[in-house]
Amino acid sequence: MKFTKNKADTAPLRDPVYIASAGAAADTSEEAVNATVGTLRDEDGNLVALKTVFDSYDEISRTAKASYASAIKGNPAYRKAVYEWVTPEEKPDLAHAVIASCGGTAAVYAAVTSLLDEGEILIIPETAWTTYRLIAETNNLRTLTYKMFDGERFTLRYIREALYSVMERQKKAVLVVNDPCHNPTGYSMSYEEWEELVSLLNEVSAQGPAALIDDIAYADYSFDTAHVHDYMRAWNGISDNVLMAAAFSCSKTLTSYGMRCGAAVLFAKNSEDLQDLENLMEKKARSIWSSAPNGVMDNFVRVTGEYRSAYLAEKQTYIDLLHRRSSLFLQEAKEAGLHLYPYREGFFITLREEDADRCRRIHEALMKKHIYTVLVSGGIRIGICSVPLEKIRGLAAKIKEAEDQIL
Amino acid sequence: MKFTKNKADTAPLRDPVYIASAGAAADTSEEAVNATVGTLRDEDGNLVALKTVFDSYDEISRTAKASYASAIKGNPAYRKAVYEWVTPEEKPDLAHAVIASCGGTAAVYAAVTSLLDEGEILIIPETAWTTYRLIAETNNLRTLTYKMFDGERFTLRYIREALYSVMERQKKAVLVVNDPCHNPTGYSMSYEEWEELVSLLNEVSAQGPAALIDDIAYADYSFDTAHVHDYMRAWNGISDNVLMAAAFSCSKTLTSYGMRCGAAVLFAKNSEDLQDLENLMEKKARSIWSSAPNGVMDNFVRVTGEYRSAYLAEKQTYIDLLHRRSSLFLQEAKEAGLHLYPYREGFFITLREEDADRCRRIHEALMKKHIYTVLVSGGIRIGICSVPLEKIRGLAAKIKEAEDQIL
Repeated sequence: MKFTKNKADTAPLRDPVYIASAGAAADTSEEAVNATVGTLRDEDGNLVALKTVFDSYDEISRTAKASYASAIKGNPAYRKAVYEWVTPEEKPDLAHAVIASCGGTAAVYAAVTSLLDEGEILIIPETAWTTYRLIAETNNLRTLTYKMFDGERFTLRYIREALYSVMERQKKAVLVVNDPCHNPTGYSMSYEEWEELVSLLNEVSAQGPAALIDDIAYADYSFDTAHVHDYMRAWNGISDNVLMAAAFSCSKTLTSYGMRCGAAVLFAKNSEDLQDLENLMEKKARSIWSSAPNGVMDNFVRVTGEYRSAYLAEKQTYIDLLHRRSSLFLQEAKEAGLHLYPYREGFFITLREEDADRCRRIHEALMKKHIYTVLVSGGIRIGICSVPLEKIRGLAAKIKEAEDQIL
Repeated sequence: MKFTKNKADTAPLRDPVYIASAGAAADTSEEAVNATVGTLRDEDGNLVALKTVFDSYDEISRTAKASYASAIKGNPAYRKAVYEWVTPEEKPDLAHAVIASCGGTAAVYAAVTSLLDEGEILIIPETAWTTYRLIAETNNLRTLTYKMFDGERFTLRYIREALYSVMERQKKAVLVVNDPCHNPTGYSMSYEEWEELVSLLNEVSAQGPAALIDDIAYADYSFDTAHVHDYMRAWNGISDNVLMAAAFSCSKTLTSYGMRCGAAVLFAKNSEDLQDLENLMEKKARSIWSSAPNGVMDNFVRVTGEYRSAYLAEKQTYIDLLHRRSSLFLQEAKEAGLHLYPYREGFFITLREEDADRCRRIHEALMKKHIYTVLVSGGIRIGICSVPLEKIRGLAAKIKEAEDQIL
């Protein structure tokens, strides 16, 4: 007897990260390198739980942790703190709204499913976190993917093609980008690239509403956090027909992956145009996660408020660590002659291999060398966020060896 | 510019509980009775955060709280503990699967949206928690409601009508019940009523798959917790064409409303028939909340394991308190001649008034008397879970006075 609905793919979930992690966990050899993990680990291989964050959390009362949020769309102080946190000092001159969510994924989910009707097309990066595609699939949306690079350079050419193609078909375009610190390439767009993207959205929006969902989950580990949100000033240039949504996550920002708190921050030229979307997303919130976790929302307000300087200093030590790890890997990769996507910053560096079969074989050859990575579309992801320096040293050369074994 | 999808109702959310609470919060007078709150409060009006639960939570490492769940469908130990917890000692002789979720709402959401296609009909109680309807609405499902009572007695007559009517139209029926401790009436079905319901599901399932989603959010405050899940033994009698799903929530069980953890527990005759649904719900999990909160899952395992007896003893003191509050209110309601739905146990007692206009006017008259309640379909909900005994004393008489003012 089939109980599931008709319009659904009931094939088992194959999450490449969880699958790769399982393989790595089974290899207990001394030389094993587990580069599958997408969470921040210190040089001893322990998950980082920032001291300032958890000192603050431990001070929050049991009653606050036990209690429902004061509002379905999130506690007012949290929504305000998130808005302040994810925008540059000079605020965008746009109407905005914030909806708290149970994690950053839920923020993307609620935005996508509020913008698109069943059967419509969501535009996502070809090389991307696989959950964007899953969100589309489980909601009977189709996807169209775009390449991000032309040779070694970032390009908007494929985004342009995708936007026009989708706009022509459905008179509406919804585009997902994951910037800064794109997972898995580590690319971050420049201010000029953002200006061009805004122009492009304006141009295409002459034919219908255009929405951009920017997944900013890794922004707080940019190598220049003081200016990481400056690109949002380019958002000021959007036309009336363009909506911008930032999907924020506490997972990385507060090293609180297991505490499921995030938010969608919506921007538009006119506040009336935001109201419908805010209403619908609030209903999504109530009907899915009911309310965001109260203690974690409180903690975000505290950490980015009274604990701010201690928190920023502590977090900076891990950004510095990411910098050292990535510099070492990039240097050795250059020496070894590895072909990488243009990494700028963030948790991941990705080997570029657009031949899917060859890519799969390299991935397997690496496992034979006790090197565990994540196979992504167009490459192999190395989670430098979780690999200590001593394991990064020599890694590029070993990868090159594995590559060279594959004809 | 309209950004939201076409098939969506973008009218603002009007959540009757949050609206009623706001009114109550604004009234600071000595005599004010706030019976709107649906969470457990002690005799001093403080939210209950069970000591055993939070003692245990505080012992969980920061790393465990920071960490992602070990599996998308939930940590194995949690899934096992939930299954043990929500089933009677003598286990149902059925295949089962457990999917952890970000709260009990999410468990209902994932089940409903995995079972029904857009445009199909969900069967829900007429007098019910309003979120069931919202889940349907935000997913473009229609609803058909059933009455639970014929005069003073519970009846399956309207459920039967609804099941056959829906089965005829879509060759599949999905029914939501909220038992035991139905919100808002406080009714709990007897074992015999459950046996009859199982027979009815079997009967109607001759025409197509029949699924029952049982929201058990309040089960752990039954007046007879030792036997509260015994009714599931009646589930043994389901046919191959029937699926049973229990939506579990840690919110009340662990007084952890603000920590968003729950689970869907699925039962069917054949494990192969469950697999598709489990696969689809796992994908829903990944694409919505990504993983359930790790520390809270750990805590559930601890509290129902090593802390079990201390926890049960502490929780029992609040069940006893609910018993005293409900007994007092029921006694005085009888003396005053209030017409109530047949309360058995749980957080809520509901005045019965099926004339919607009169009901609304009574609800308003109560506010003029500083008595704050929640207007529900077919009545007025009194949250005895949050009203201290001294405020319950005399409440029924005051309600009767207000009623008598309405012609």
